[in-house]
Amino acid sequence: MNAIVEQPQSNNLRARRMALDTHDQPVILTRRDCPVCRSEGFSAHARVRVQNGSRRIIATLYQIDADWLAPGEAGLSESAWHRLQIAEGDEVHLSHPQPLNSLSLVRGRIWGRRFTRQALNDIMTDVAAGRYADIHIAMLLTVMATGGLDEGEVIALTDAMIRAGDTLNWGREPIADKHCVGGLPGNRTTPLVVAIIAACGLWMPKTSSRAITSPAGTADTMETLAPVDLDTNAMRRVVEREGGCIVWGGAVRLSPVDDMLIRVARVMDLDAEAQLVASVLSKKIAAGSSHLVLDLPVGPTAKIRERTEAEELGLRLKSVAEHFGLATRVLITDGRAPVGRGIGPALEARDIISVLGRHADAPTDLRERALVLSAELLELTGAARPGEGRAQAEQTLDSGAAASKFEAICVAQGGLRQPPVARRRYLILAKRRGRVLSIDNRRLGRVAKLAGAPGAPAAGVELHCTLGDSIEREQPLYTIHAETTGELNYAREFAFSNGDIIDIAEPD
Amino acid sequence: MNAIVEQPQSNNLRARRMALDTHDQPVILTRRDCPVCRSEGFSAHARVRVQNGSRRIIATLYQIDADWLAPGEAGLSESAWHRLQIAEGDEVHLSHPQPLNSLSLVRGRIWGRRFTRQALNDIMTDVAAGRYADIHIAMLLTVMATGGLDEGEVIALTDAMIRAGDTLNWGREPIADKHCVGGLPGNRTTPLVVAIIAACGLWMPKTSSRAITSPAGTADTMETLAPVDLDTNAMRRVVEREGGCIVWGGAVRLSPVDDMLIRVARVMDLDAEAQLVASVLSKKIAAGSSHLVLDLPVGPTAKIRERTEAEELGLRLKSVAEHFGLATRVLITDGRAPVGRGIGPALEARDIISVLGRHADAPTDLRERALVLSAELLELTGAARPGEGRAQAEQTLDSGAAASKFEAICVAQGGLRQPPVARRRYLILAKRRGRVLSIDNRRLGRVAKLAGAPGAPAAGVELHCTLGDSIEREQPLYTIHAETTGELNYAREFAFSNGDIIDIAEPD
Repeated sequence: MNAIVEQPQSNNLRARRMALDTHDQPVILTRRDCPVCRSEGFSAHARVRVQNGSRRIIATLYQIDADWLAPGEAGLSESAWHRLQIAEGDEVHLSHPQPLNSLSLVRGRIWGRRFTRQALNDIMTDVAAGRYADIHIAMLLTVMATGGLDEGEVIALTDAMIRAGDTLNWGREPIADKHCVGGLPGNRTTPLVVAIIAACGLWMPKTSSRAITSPAGTADTMETLAPVDLDTNAMRRVVEREGGCIVWGGAVRLSPVDDMLIRVARVMDLDAEAQLVASVLSKKIAAGSSHLVLDLPVGPTAKIRERTEAEELGLRLKSVAEHFGLATRVLITDGRAPVGRGIGPALEARDIISVLGRHADAPTDLRERALVLSAELLELTGAARPGEGRAQAEQTLDSGAAASKFEAICVAQGGLRQPPVARRRYLILAKRRGRVLSIDNRRLGRVAKLAGAPGAPAAGVELHCTLGDSIEREQPLYTIHAETTGELNYAREFAFSNGDIIDIAEPD
Repeated sequence: MNAIVEQPQSNNLRARRMALDTHDQPVILTRRDCPVCRSEGFSAHARVRVQNGSRRIIATLYQIDADWLAPGEAGLSESAWHRLQIAEGDEVHLSHPQPLNSLSLVRGRIWGRRFTRQALNDIMTDVAAGRYADIHIAMLLTVMATGGLDEGEVIALTDAMIRAGDTLNWGREPIADKHCVGGLPGNRTTPLVVAIIAACGLWMPKTSSRAITSPAGTADTMETLAPVDLDTNAMRRVVEREGGCIVWGGAVRLSPVDDMLIRVARVMDLDAEAQLVASVLSKKIAAGSSHLVLDLPVGPTAKIRERTEAEELGLRLKSVAEHFGLATRVLITDGRAPVGRGIGPALEARDIISVLGRHADAPTDLRERALVLSAELLELTGAARPGEGRAQAEQTLDSGAAASKFEAICVAQGGLRQPPVARRRYLILAKRRGRVLSIDNRRLGRVAKLAGAPGAPAAGVELHCTLGDSIEREQPLYTIHAETTGELNYAREFAFSNGDIIDIAEPD
């Protein structure tokens, strides 16, 4: 009774570039009546393997019952097009993806089984290869957030994330690094610290992230001042010349899984400890860092709300970091209010420039934090003796050495830029006089995001007051910056219905 | 300094039907240079609100830099098109969606806060309105699976799922219902039980699901015998005429959220207890059922592996059901092997027809299970006295009354159909002689799914042996049925590399 099993016919289709931006999700469009789909039994929204020579991706398949695509054509989204490195008219081969076995390990964690080292390696390998759909990544992130991973799992996760990407080896020590566990709008110390440390003669090849849920990440801010999409070789050239750089981590393929997780975490608006620890440290370790200072701001509306929580997270970070031989110092800092004046990429960039330029109106809190972190890093690496880091950092900043170094780094990264200025603004005024009691980091960040940050780099919030200030009625509290009327309106409406973002106590 | 805030220009675009099947995910395509997108600052892959008169949906926005769409056009996927009930050339209005506030309640559950009744209502309202992207639903499902919900939460979830859809009121009692907690391939008793119970004069308006992770759901199987996409009015007409029906729950909008969750759960390959309980019971309660018999098969490769687990789940189901006034009886049954011969919609339909027709080769295990469940239901509703249900059920089946009733129901639902027959088959033979020790439900289900079930209704597996059978070498174990060569090959390869799906012990 066994029929001779026919060999499937050539599963090839002609690639057509649809100029379709689906963000990072690779999409392939085919006619429902195309012979390949019929013979393979692909149904719409299935995941299919698409191959071009030795390059292959897993893409989401959408099917069409219309003539804007020919039966022999495969329409590819931009993300699919670039990953396959294809040319118009090339053929792509379609097939069913292998079963996603590592997903059962994620499900197993839901039912309470711990992740083994091998499990996390398998999962991260599949994520890195693009085999996980967004739904699967969302499941993985939620699993990692719920109940948390134990230290062994976090170490294994960090290791798996490092292995799924490239690593850098600078052939020397120390390699200085810093990181701030986000949640504090405007706290853009990294470019300042890199400038100071590199000006002191240490190497600080910094890779930074884009925003996860905040209005700006360091990479977003830095991008308004200089190119940040440098590959490994370009980054190495900058560091060898200037001793420092501030580039986007994703472009150098250090822990590339991290960026894939971050993209989905952003939609979920979720930050989880295990992912946070592995995300921070995998990037640092893959980047070849030997000495790390961590800034953990604490405040009622910061990411970390309680000092005890910061202490625990700090211990976890330090412990995992030192497992990998990364010397680490943790600073718990004041996170009650935004730092500097700007919130949003370009507005934060302006603060940086004014601190480096020692302008009279430069934000003192941002300057202070940069000095504290630089001092710790100088002492941790042994570049300064205990107690002498502060003076060295201050001298480097005040002499203009840090400013010159920053400019040189920007030039080496591809040229110093002028941060853009938003086309539309709206000023939010105090509704009564009194003293500034509190500033809600989260809701102020939301205003900046509604105004378009970080997608629109010039958008965001410019603060005109800080904690403890005495305010008159109708005095400016902050300015909303936006590129479009629609976004300005959304931010404005949110600001109006949240009049207590800046909480002003009645005068006695 | 405040500029006059410009009113956004008309955010309207001309709707164009793209005949694009993105499954249930609404997608809208626009030119990146269209004025609406520029003025509103929509970025690719953003979620946007699309409005047509009083109808509005949240859709995923993909942007195009090419001429296959005009700047004033909005290309809509089929799912978006149908939900907006739009006509070609109509205008749609685009805007930013409201912030998804209920998502913070889902995140709160990750951090250990319990769900309140209000929280679950808010979440389910947003899910029902299509405000949750697949990523958000994946997060919700994972949260509900991890650690489980407590009974108060499950009751609140069930209630919220009922409220998010329509409810039926039959104006009489009892209304009989049954449910099997899946995982047992081929266990297609529902159509048999409905036929027997309705033939006994009781009302049994059955709504069933499509497959979540299995090769066939009751709705998939029934659809090969009669239409199942009946709306509420059509369903009511069938039940008023025949006393019973077997329709797809999604078409009658009973607990519509359930189907949205199931679509994502299927991609995740995840079944979670809280979702299971709420899913099962919200459908039953919304359907107006008063008496419910639950079949919980237990076996090493069934969904429920341990008897104690079944007992706990049974108690949870009974307790939540009775909170809503639904009288419930739980049967824990043998789930060590598939039931009947067919696995896959059409193959299971054939088993049903042969049991109803009292064919000599009708599968006795399927018949036996249908009789046991019918007997319990007759006794639970009081239609039979304790101990007399079995005889009544048997008499109804053996007299042909159940067969006539089933035919009448099919005709009332729109006409009895002949189940399709697959175009390709492949026979798997025993590699040695011996006795059938075990049959792996899961991997056999996987063979059926790789062969194309349930998407291809004729596809699946036809079993030629059962537990305890004595088998000769080269004796047929099962036949793979498929519609396409590609699928047949995938199923065959999996069967070859899993030669122990049917485990044959060496003879003594």
